[in-house]
Amino acid sequence: MSVQTVNQISLPDATKKRLSQIEELLKVHQAEKITSALISSKTGWKDSLIRHDLWLLRQTVPENLFHGISNGYQKEDLLQALKIALGSAEEKINVCIAGLGRLGAALLDEAFFEGSQFVIKAGFDSNVNRVEILRSTFPLYPAGDMNWVIRQEKIKLAVLAVSDQSAQSMTDKLLNAGITGIVNMTRSVLKVPDGIKVENISVVNSLKLLI
Amino acid sequence: MSVQTVNQISLPDATKKRLSQIEELLKVHQAEKITSALISSKTGWKDSLIRHDLWLLRQTVPENLFHGISNGYQKEDLLQALKIALGSAEEKINVCIAGLGRLGAALLDEAFFEGSQFVIKAGFDSNVNRVEILRSTFPLYPAGDMNWVIRQEKIKLAVLAVSDQSAQSMTDKLLNAGITGIVNMTRSVLKVPDGIKVENISVVNSLKLLI
Repeated sequence: MSVQTVNQISLPDATKKRLSQIEELLKVHQAEKITSALISSKTGWKDSLIRHDLWLLRQTVPENLFHGISNGYQKEDLLQALKIALGSAEEKINVCIAGLGRLGAALLDEAFFEGSQFVIKAGFDSNVNRVEILRSTFPLYPAGDMNWVIRQEKIKLAVLAVSDQSAQSMTDKLLNAGITGIVNMTRSVLKVPDGIKVENISVVNSLKLLI
Repeated sequence: MSVQTVNQISLPDATKKRLSQIEELLKVHQAEKITSALISSKTGWKDSLIRHDLWLLRQTVPENLFHGISNGYQKEDLLQALKIALGSAEEKINVCIAGLGRLGAALLDEAFFEGSQFVIKAGFDSNVNRVEILRSTFPLYPAGDMNWVIRQEKIKLAVLAVSDQSAQSMTDKLLNAGITGIVNMTRSVLKVPDGIKVENISVVNSLKLLI
């Protein structure tokens, strides 16, 4: 299991995923306080599991961050801790969309990334017509421009929405240009070197896991 | 960790995910045979891990299925075993798309599900205009029709592509109509009863895991 180091403490991937979802919950939570029991009622996760995740979280942030934890958490304290531990307090992170077919083009909407720390800086497609016809609030480029655009715009992460057949070759190009992590929307397995992270979110592959 | 029972044997989720990706690899593999070393070279996973997954796979299928496994696998044998173990040999499974905004509408394309066992039977949106304007090869309905359509079309799984704010209320409606598993494309955490499976594939939440 891969882990991410924060302040010398590693959060397990499963904990990180849940904390990240708790962060989303808190953003729409109205009251000033929140308890693990309430999080449990909203997520269906066991109270003991949530307490353990929050305990792990507290190991990764400054000790004086929390006020009055004996009776639930202050929403703002917890949000701040989650931001620190999950890295979402840091500066904006630049992202590109690789592949502008139906699925990739559906992401050409800033509202989609609203409230997150991600900024879409570019879209790429090997079909030059597509690049010229599509409308978006950020620039679109032919795939051949990938190398200089990714470097110039300091783009770190990519969302891969090309065809399954082009997935690996596009991945190789993205990594060559300096991308360090890929959200893979294709059904293909991507081969990447150590140190490069991939999150697989193909709709079809995910449906298979529901059977 | 949740497990799926196949022929009295349970495949761990992580193994199932890898086997499902190996199945996709094999579909585009040209040669008649394949070895764990070759799968390793295409995926970057350790050879020992792949051997273990394939060993687990062999426990779930009829013993006489494999021919000449001493020196790699026959591609067709392995594909057949994967189909049995992953349930993809079974009858078609009916799916609906809930939410026809930019992202949901991008899935209104049969090509997207080509070669899979999933058949999109319906799309739903609470915006009646959207339902009338969008074009697709399968029927679109206002969300109010969900109950009878899901039952009549024997739809088992749903892809959730509504806004984050509507995610839980739409989930409740889907479950009420008989849906047993949801691919969640929203950023929201879904609360579902025991026995209902959810796969979370939000682009934004997945980007967070790459930091």
